[in-house]
Amino acid sequence: MDAGLRAAHWMRVALDLARQAAALGEVPVGAVVVRGESVVGAAHNWRETWRDPTAHAELIAIREASRRLGGWRLDGCELFVTLEPCPMCAGAIVLSRLDAVFYGAPDPKGGALASKMALLTPGLWNHHPEISGGILADECGMILKDFFRGLRPRRGASQSRLPAGARRDVRVAEGARLESE
Amino acid sequence: MDAGLRAAHWMRVALDLARQAAALGEVPVGAVVVRGESVVGAAHNWRETWRDPTAHAELIAIREASRRLGGWRLDGCELFVTLEPCPMCAGAIVLSRLDAVFYGAPDPKGGALASKMALLTPGLWNHHPEISGGILADECGMILKDFFRGLRPRRGASQSRLPAGARRDVRVAEGARLESE
Repeated sequence: MDAGLRAAHWMRVALDLARQAAALGEVPVGAVVVRGESVVGAAHNWRETWRDPTAHAELIAIREASRRLGGWRLDGCELFVTLEPCPMCAGAIVLSRLDAVFYGAPDPKGGALASKMALLTPGLWNHHPEISGGILADECGMILKDFFRGLRPRRGASQSRLPAGARRDVRVAEGARLESE
Repeated sequence: MDAGLRAAHWMRVALDLARQAAALGEVPVGAVVVRGESVVGAAHNWRETWRDPTAHAELIAIREASRRLGGWRLDGCELFVTLEPCPMCAGAIVLSRLDAVFYGAPDPKGGALASKMALLTPGLWNHHPEISGGILADECGMILKDFFRGLRPRRGASQSRLPAGARRDVRVAEGARLESE
């Protein structure tokens, strides 16, 4: 398969996960870890539901892949994630020795691969993956914009479909910008 | 209690955890999350045993504290960790909104708070904790040096007391320097 088509294919799988997140009141970011042509890890954000600040899609997908493959080294694996990773997830990408990272929308306020900083610059750490950004960027960004727009209070309308706790937390996330998604 | 004595007190608790890690063949780093005068999260590295690249002491202690306190915001909490955090853990510190971080030994090759980079520089992210390094630094560093020294093959001596799998992985960690501990 053509490399661009292949990246778009896996990004669509990650986008499906992001949509599932939105339905739960979680900031819609999805991630898959792929080895060859198999998914070995897949997750969306779970921070609000799990009440866990580290429950980002990428970190959970990496943990699942390690569990499934029986070791902490994810050589030969690639990560596809709908939003540019934050510093925590960029660090986890180095630690897990992923071969490559493909991300969708850039994150101007929190992105640690290119936007806010280039944490995985070759030579900085003992491993650096290949990085490709902007895969289905519009679609990946739109799902986030729609989510946050849906949370804004509208005059004369009920504030949100979400339960009060989730609504409060997610609005905090919005105020805190995406780096804290 | 005097602030310096208090920091040393909690660092000794983290050091006890680091010693437990060494006994398991895990790179000896320990961390505690403290709220007021209570431990709400405590862990050492579990990467080798769990085969999880994200199983650093800090990340596990932060997750435990969130679970125990019932929310992902660790306002009012402090982290004490025997080794300067890596980028992943520095990112998790921002995401969890910890008030302060106290670390022991600097990590010249992997430390993300001061040594290799200053990832938590005020103004960079939407939250920055107070940072104090060098708490019982000699003791915190010595336990790491002793651990890696014990793993080096000696002429005419058996290579290590550790099981073969742990020995191999930990020697890889040593070669990869501390950022991948």
